[in-house]
Amino acid sequence: MAASVATDILISEVGPRDGLQSVRSIMPLDAKKAWVRAEAAAGVREIEVGSFVPHSLLPQLADTGELVRYAKTIEGLTVAVLVPNLKGAEAAVKAGVDKITLPLSVSETHSLKNVRRTHAQMIAEATAITNLVKSLPAEQRPTFEGGLSTVFGCTIEGPIADTQIARLAEALMQAGCDEVGLADTSGYANPAQVKHLVRLVRGVVGDEALTGIHLHNTRGLGLANVLAALEAGLTTLDSSLGGVGGCPFAPGASGNIVTEDLVFMLQSMGLQTGIDLAALLEVRFAVAAALPDEEFYGFVAEAGLPLGFQGEQPARNGAHAIA
Amino acid sequence: MAASVATDILISEVGPRDGLQSVRSIMPLDAKKAWVRAEAAAGVREIEVGSFVPHSLLPQLADTGELVRYAKTIEGLTVAVLVPNLKGAEAAVKAGVDKITLPLSVSETHSLKNVRRTHAQMIAEATAITNLVKSLPAEQRPTFEGGLSTVFGCTIEGPIADTQIARLAEALMQAGCDEVGLADTSGYANPAQVKHLVRLVRGVVGDEALTGIHLHNTRGLGLANVLAALEAGLTTLDSSLGGVGGCPFAPGASGNIVTEDLVFMLQSMGLQTGIDLAALLEVRFAVAAALPDEEFYGFVAEAGLPLGFQGEQPARNGAHAIA
Repeated sequence: MAASVATDILISEVGPRDGLQSVRSIMPLDAKKAWVRAEAAAGVREIEVGSFVPHSLLPQLADTGELVRYAKTIEGLTVAVLVPNLKGAEAAVKAGVDKITLPLSVSETHSLKNVRRTHAQMIAEATAITNLVKSLPAEQRPTFEGGLSTVFGCTIEGPIADTQIARLAEALMQAGCDEVGLADTSGYANPAQVKHLVRLVRGVVGDEALTGIHLHNTRGLGLANVLAALEAGLTTLDSSLGGVGGCPFAPGASGNIVTEDLVFMLQSMGLQTGIDLAALLEVRFAVAAALPDEEFYGFVAEAGLPLGFQGEQPARNGAHAIA
Repeated sequence: MAASVATDILISEVGPRDGLQSVRSIMPLDAKKAWVRAEAAAGVREIEVGSFVPHSLLPQLADTGELVRYAKTIEGLTVAVLVPNLKGAEAAVKAGVDKITLPLSVSETHSLKNVRRTHAQMIAEATAITNLVKSLPAEQRPTFEGGLSTVFGCTIEGPIADTQIARLAEALMQAGCDEVGLADTSGYANPAQVKHLVRLVRGVVGDEALTGIHLHNTRGLGLANVLAALEAGLTTLDSSLGGVGGCPFAPGASGNIVTEDLVFMLQSMGLQTGIDLAALLEVRFAVAAALPDEEFYGFVAEAGLPLGFQGEQPARNGAHAIA
């Protein structure tokens, strides 16, 4: 395939949500604000700042509303959150988010374990959220994404059938989602599978409605899977500063992709991210200092940049063909 | 590009050479023999067992001759070694190796620092080795590879010009090498560059004379670079059990690709390696026990295999199109 990769890759930082949700000691709101502010200043244009879940379930994210309101004051930043249901979406809308993601685990067993809901119940939630979003004035409507999680396999069910994935992608779009995303919740994905599932789901929802992917590095294939995703045409990539976090409900499935290493790979390939890598590495050290008990992953921060590395070049017109 | 990947990927284990050369405490010959025997039993078909360098320089590899003679008793195993010059090649031939690699650093500064020889002197060595090899009866002739090292950039010189790389690849072939290889000595490679350099060098030497690549994981891009190499048509991949080793003469350039993770990626993509991954993971634990002071890297050994992972399937005819 003549893979054409857009020059403009959107990195969606998920550390304040996906990273922190597995961190026990609660990070003060001011430290979260400083993290979001610093990453935005380094050029990150989308940050998933939290989840609207019951505070008792994830006390770490209980201040998501306040963090959203703060993040919304940062010009040019898309403020994203995760919600498990309509109630979460109502809180998200009230806080004024730009993007809502409702994760739908394509493994029904995982869905029941994670949010205690069947597929039918989750699709009903998606419909209810759509109704909420559509009731808003156009300029206040957040983007609504249905996230297909455990799509590369489930730690409880194993591989999930293509037909089931396609059916659920279609159901989310019929329920009114603006787009769907793919999430390697379990860290099972491989590059061939990434290309296959992008094609499968785009075949159902259309190319415009699948642009993003949430990959893990659990088995070391994170950046290889990113390359496959780029070649399959995706342009939005989730990652976490220092690789902090993972899914607390999927045992052994830790390890987000490291934002710093991802930006390094993309920039070294000549792709545009809009991010200042040197500034991002500074943010890493600041956030690591604010989370002294957490392990920060990543190779570039340790190995340094190659001699002669030019970083991001001024944007060029057109797209790079990388295949 | 319609990338067609051969079903038969050759993994060349370099741990006993590239791994051990940076290990200070000398591994007993019997332990090395057990390592080579066990990996061959797990299905690894090519192992770089050592280097013929002055014993004073690398005492760890002083028993390479004995290890070669042992490894040659293992049926179906290609026994490879590195040599820095004609003298090393003479020892390699005497021991009966199947493959000799002469590394030529495309950075002349690195070449002078590493083996104290200019490019012209290294090409002269290649010619002398060719004469030696050609003087042997056909059935005793080892394959002779010229390894283009620091080809993705040098820690001293930075990026190396395409014209210089092309010229040296051509010079190695004119000196009589059977093939050339690419080596990311410094851990600087990125996927776009891998594809670019494979095309560049194949354009000079022909597709048949460039099939292999030696990648590092210094900046976390090792397996992404493997994917790029596969898509560019390469079929021989160097890696090290547990990711042990690197180049002791390139500061900060540690971190071979982990054989276990590489085999996992290839098998999960449906590619054939001939290797039993479960058996390979057992070898990892045995070798790690024999090298108690060394750090063993890799994700799969820690995270385990995905639920429902099928491992290597019986060989099919034809090739997989993975793009």
